[in-house]
Amino acid sequence: MQSVKPFMGDDYLLDSPLAVELYEQYAKDLPIFDYHCHLSPKDIATDRTYDNIGQLWLECDHYKWRMMRAVGLPEEVITGGASWHDKFVAFASVMPRIIGSPVYAWAHLELKTYFGISRPMNAASAEEIWRQANAKMANGSFSARQLILRSGVEALCTTDDPADDLPFHRAIAADETFPVRVLPSFRPDQIVTGLGGPAFLPYVKRLSAASGIACDTFDGLLAAVEQRLTYFVQNGCVVTDISLTSFAETTATREEAAAAYAKALAGQAVTPAEQAAYADFMLRHLAGRYRALGLVMQLHLSSIRNNNSARFAALGPDCGNDSVGAMVNVAAFGRWLDAVEQSGGLPKTIVYTLNEAQYYELATMIGNFWGDVPGRLQLGAAWWFCDHAEGIRRQLQMTANTGALGVFNGMLTDSRSFTSYPRHDFFRRILCSFVATHVLRGEYDPDPEGLRQLIFDICVGNARRYFSKGEE
Amino acid sequence: MQSVKPFMGDDYLLDSPLAVELYEQYAKDLPIFDYHCHLSPKDIATDRTYDNIGQLWLECDHYKWRMMRAVGLPEEVITGGASWHDKFVAFASVMPRIIGSPVYAWAHLELKTYFGISRPMNAASAEEIWRQANAKMANGSFSARQLILRSGVEALCTTDDPADDLPFHRAIAADETFPVRVLPSFRPDQIVTGLGGPAFLPYVKRLSAASGIACDTFDGLLAAVEQRLTYFVQNGCVVTDISLTSFAETTATREEAAAAYAKALAGQAVTPAEQAAYADFMLRHLAGRYRALGLVMQLHLSSIRNNNSARFAALGPDCGNDSVGAMVNVAAFGRWLDAVEQSGGLPKTIVYTLNEAQYYELATMIGNFWGDVPGRLQLGAAWWFCDHAEGIRRQLQMTANTGALGVFNGMLTDSRSFTSYPRHDFFRRILCSFVATHVLRGEYDPDPEGLRQLIFDICVGNARRYFSKGEE
Amino acid sequence: MQSVKPFMGDDYLLDSPLAVELYEQYAKDLPIFDYHCHLSPKDIATDRTYDNIGQLWLECDHYKWRMMRAVGLPEEVITGGASWHDKFVAFASVMPRIIGSPVYAWAHLELKTYFGISRPMNAASAEEIWRQANAKMANGSFSARQLILRSGVEALCTTDDPADDLPFHRAIAADETFPVRVLPSFRPDQIVTGLGGPAFLPYVKRLSAASGIACDTFDGLLAAVEQRLTYFVQNGCVVTDISLTSFAETTATREEAAAAYAKALAGQAVTPAEQAAYADFMLRHLAGRYRALGLVMQLHLSSIRNNNSARFAALGPDCGNDSVGAMVNVAAFGRWLDAVEQSGGLPKTIVYTLNEAQYYELATMIGNFWGDVPGRLQLGAAWWFCDHAEGIRRQLQMTANTGALGVFNGMLTDSRSFTSYPRHDFFRRILCSFVATHVLRGEYDPDPEGLRQLIFDICVGNARRYFSKGEE
Repeated sequence: MQSVKPFMGDDYLLDSPLAVELYEQYAKDLPIFDYHCHLSPKDIATDRTYDNIGQLWLECDHYKWRMMRAVGLPEEVITGGASWHDKFVAFASVMPRIIGSPVYAWAHLELKTYFGISRPMNAASAEEIWRQANAKMANGSFSARQLILRSGVEALCTTDDPADDLPFHRAIAADETFPVRVLPSFRPDQIVTGLGGPAFLPYVKRLSAASGIACDTFDGLLAAVEQRLTYFVQNGCVVTDISLTSFAETTATREEAAAAYAKALAGQAVTPAEQAAYADFMLRHLAGRYRALGLVMQLHLSSIRNNNSARFAALGPDCGNDSVGAMVNVAAFGRWLDAVEQSGGLPKTIVYTLNEAQYYELATMIGNFWGDVPGRLQLGAAWWFCDHAEGIRRQLQMTANTGALGVFNGMLTDSRSFTSYPRHDFFRRILCSFVATHVLRGEYDPDPEGLRQLIFDICVGNARRYFSKGEE
Repeated sequence: MQSVKPFMGDDYLLDSPLAVELYEQYAKDLPIFDYHCHLSPKDIATDRTYDNIGQLWLECDHYKWRMMRAVGLPEEVITGGASWHDKFVAFASVMPRIIGSPVYAWAHLELKTYFGISRPMNAASAEEIWRQANAKMANGSFSARQLILRSGVEALCTTDDPADDLPFHRAIAADETFPVRVLPSFRPDQIVTGLGGPAFLPYVKRLSAASGIACDTFDGLLAAVEQRLTYFVQNGCVVTDISLTSFAETTATREEAAAAYAKALAGQAVTPAEQAAYADFMLRHLAGRYRALGLVMQLHLSSIRNNNSARFAALGPDCGNDSVGAMVNVAAFGRWLDAVEQSGGLPKTIVYTLNEAQYYELATMIGNFWGDVPGRLQLGAAWWFCDHAEGIRRQLQMTANTGALGVFNGMLTDSRSFTSYPRHDFFRRILCSFVATHVLRGEYDPDPEGLRQLIFDICVGNARRYFSKGEE
Repeated sequence: MQSVKPFMGDDYLLDSPLAVELYEQYAKDLPIFDYHCHLSPKDIATDRTYDNIGQLWLECDHYKWRMMRAVGLPEEVITGGASWHDKFVAFASVMPRIIGSPVYAWAHLELKTYFGISRPMNAASAEEIWRQANAKMANGSFSARQLILRSGVEALCTTDDPADDLPFHRAIAADETFPVRVLPSFRPDQIVTGLGGPAFLPYVKRLSAASGIACDTFDGLLAAVEQRLTYFVQNGCVVTDISLTSFAETTATREEAAAAYAKALAGQAVTPAEQAAYADFMLRHLAGRYRALGLVMQLHLSSIRNNNSARFAALGPDCGNDSVGAMVNVAAFGRWLDAVEQSGGLPKTIVYTLNEAQYYELATMIGNFWGDVPGRLQLGAAWWFCDHAEGIRRQLQMTANTGALGVFNGMLTDSRSFTSYPRHDFFRRILCSFVATHVLRGEYDPDPEGLRQLIFDICVGNARRYFSKGEE
């Protein structure tokens, strides 16, 4: 006899009664510390509202767009001029052909969580779901803040440019009616990897204006960066971020970095070697400052962006035109970590990669720098193309196989959508199944209090501690 | 209590009652569209017959040969002078030591499917199986055509050289007594990657003779290629193929390609950079022509061939002397796809790789070019060293995790053997288990009609559409 | 209803009744042929004893140290001056946070096997376990020899420097009271990859002294190496070992190698190209000698060592400061194998890698050189960072998917600890579950005698044959 679970039922992703028990008792109702996302601070500050599921879901979700393209839909109903209704119906009609896709899982989980609808989407059910969902939204309850509150979020970290004045973060912090901590993250990609690109000099001007410090020398640039860091910290920043595709083969000196900067400032072309030297030094310098300021460093490795020129020209970045890049040179990465460690010490560091095939290299390399702080360096949660159920299981397994899963910071949304919080629920279900399996197999201590603590820590406890500057 | 399944029983690879149901009702009896194989058109045209299982199985199956070498058998009973009887007995004796090998699975599945024998092969059973199998073959029923018909094949695409006159394809097409479509595939490896090698100039002569067009200029070469393409299309060609191990770091001009060709024609040595430029341009040119002609482009990546010099000298190519090569440069691959897309558009494209560790890079890179046609670019079925049960599951999972499994073209045999069609059955069983698991876990719509459609599409429906030139 | 297994119970890792049956009847009591470890011959010769579990476990086990660092413990209780008691308690307190870690599995398996204690370690249970364990050790029964004997070891191969005079191996061999074969392994890393490093010239002096042959020419060096090889073989050596991170892009001549050696001898700096040429030739030369002498060649690929400079300065090598390196160039590896095969033939060869993502490349490349000897080249057992349960399953699966699992040499400890033998038990349980699963699914012959033979071969039979010089 086979057991058939109801579609997207309460025991979704829970593969044993013990998993259900762990989830229901220990995981389900914990608050969310979403330490990395791309939500708009403006939308939160202004409490933007949505009134139809088409716009809510399809305005900026490149995960969904890719699935619509995969089955051959025209761009008209994806990013084009079709109505939200038609876009939603088109999206719903894709569902039967994306069995096993994380988009299938997440869309249905969001439908259940926020709309109370548990039926499969497809061409036949699309119209009724469109009506039912929009009816739920009619009372204005689908606003940025209400969605955040309904989801049990206690804190969230947006992703922000160092030149940003953070007006919305300040407004939110000043608003006593909204209890959720909305913290800026310092993301200096342009400062570190922009040198030599067309946007670099204009960006330096912005930075200069934001900091009030002239960037016409390398010392000036570093002072401006320091001013922005201080400003971010004053406004609650606890974590930084950067996207990288490589590490320099050799460790650059300050003089080399300054020389490359001077050339770029003078409008001269810089060589790839000069770019690499500048980036290497600047990133090490920042890592040292993060350490001093008690900030967490996030490294996002191996994404390769804007690969389809025509689509990029038509739609710009972040439109489903990115993919998994080659592995980084792990020996160069190790030398870089070591250089930071030798000159003042590594900050707490989370390493994410899109390239699962490099998990072993990265997870064991960061292990060479463990000590003093629980999970001082850690492999980040399954990210982007990897954060489906199998990918989450693999990241948990990899962390468990090579390190201490019990100090892992757990899930984040990495999302632009206010209805993406069920990804935390998705993760917690998988985590509870993972833990339950070890207990059921006699491979882990069945003590209930130990299980509660383990699950609490990974769901929220570790993140609270890790992203608290006091602990360093 | 544990359930023990019978050896190679009816529910082989079906891991739930629902999987059995899906397989029996929706998958089992569907026809086969085998869009990539290496069967001999001559053997089909002449309806070659076999009269013993030793020759049928061991004449040219390098999968089996490798297993015999793995356990240390002498070449005498593998490719040497031993009798078919002795070779078969030797092969059967290997079986107990290759638990979990796809050769174990396929050989027993073929034994059951074509001979009605369901017992394990080993040294003890070899003689009786030899007698029983050969008795079944005595009536001449093991001919190329009868094996194809018994297997439910509706169409198959062989792999052919552009200089081939396709006499056997024409004969088969003209023969109204044989209803199966036997279509040539255009495989221009020598044209694209041969430049600079010893076989290149003789090959150009063959091409010139076949096309009736002088290839003494680059324009002439392109005209000759065009003539052959047209000829192939006239003879039913719907798909092309090529094996590649790298993509050029930079995009070459027509002038660079023409210059490299001129040097080669003049008998001068060409540099690796010139070879790369020529190959880059030629492959882009061909891709454009495929698009214009409505042909599918198949790319087979990361095979590394003829690695054992002594064995290659003794036996030649395709004798179990090949293996999995390094990953290709995914950024270069992306630039190549983008260059084709920008100059006229990509044809429908299937990307196979032997190197599973690169699945994520490739599956997500091709996703940047989706749109307009269902599964316009797709990750090819698990190939060669990867097409065992676990490899097939992994390719399904990878496709599901990164794209739309519902538009996947499904299985192919990639085989030289007329008894390799059970690989489609093998695949369908795994597919039905995969789909059933999602339904049983409440992760996919249980609607029977939806399930029927999904399975039909992946087993045969998608291939029928995808390999139909009208659809582009 | 869910079945909950007892913690670390008798059916640990056995996932079906058939697995239990296979393990109990065929695997459990087989002797151990531990063909690769890092035990101290001196400790065996002198029968070193241990009197507390802290020292026994934490004196030199960098696996355990890494886990203690992962949760943020101070170095004081890891490699520092804290008492063995405090170190043990600290280690025990780590356990709840390393669910799924091989250290969790092994430590509890050792606790059960050698101390008869089956309870979970944690901060609360640490003191009592400390007392109980030490009480068991009080009678002196935890000596090197008694632990080896209790573990059912029939032979073990240590890892030894070619310049070593092997006094302890000779003493053990001469001692009729100790029946276990303790054999030296020839590990010429310094000879092959040391050229150009600071330790090379002093090492050449040691080699000269040990061999009695002047190494002031390349011929002299080769003669000294030959003398040491002969000496090792006279003292029972059957297997060699080396750690490599790359293979040369081109095949070097003897003259190139000799020239590089002459430069190094003269105290001149050598280029990376000269180092590579020297290493390439020397390794091929050695491989030829191994073949001639009937020795097995072990290649350990893709470890990257001493990555944290500060920790290396403080603690030296082998202190948890190593990790998984990048893949080797598989084409270069193939050319190297082919060059050895062409000049006299490859010895029996085992290829280990830390980089699982390269399993397919390596497992299929070595398959190009199979023949004549069962498992002539094989993928080594899951190693170091990979030898957790999932890693062992993956190596079994990979070997099964690409070759003949039935000729695999099975497990080794690769350990410095006298209580690491439960890793063989750990492996055998996983192996029996693997085999049972295939039988239960109807995918492998259920014949009991065949199952017994298969399991016997992989547990001990194959290693006995493979590491016997007579067989080549």
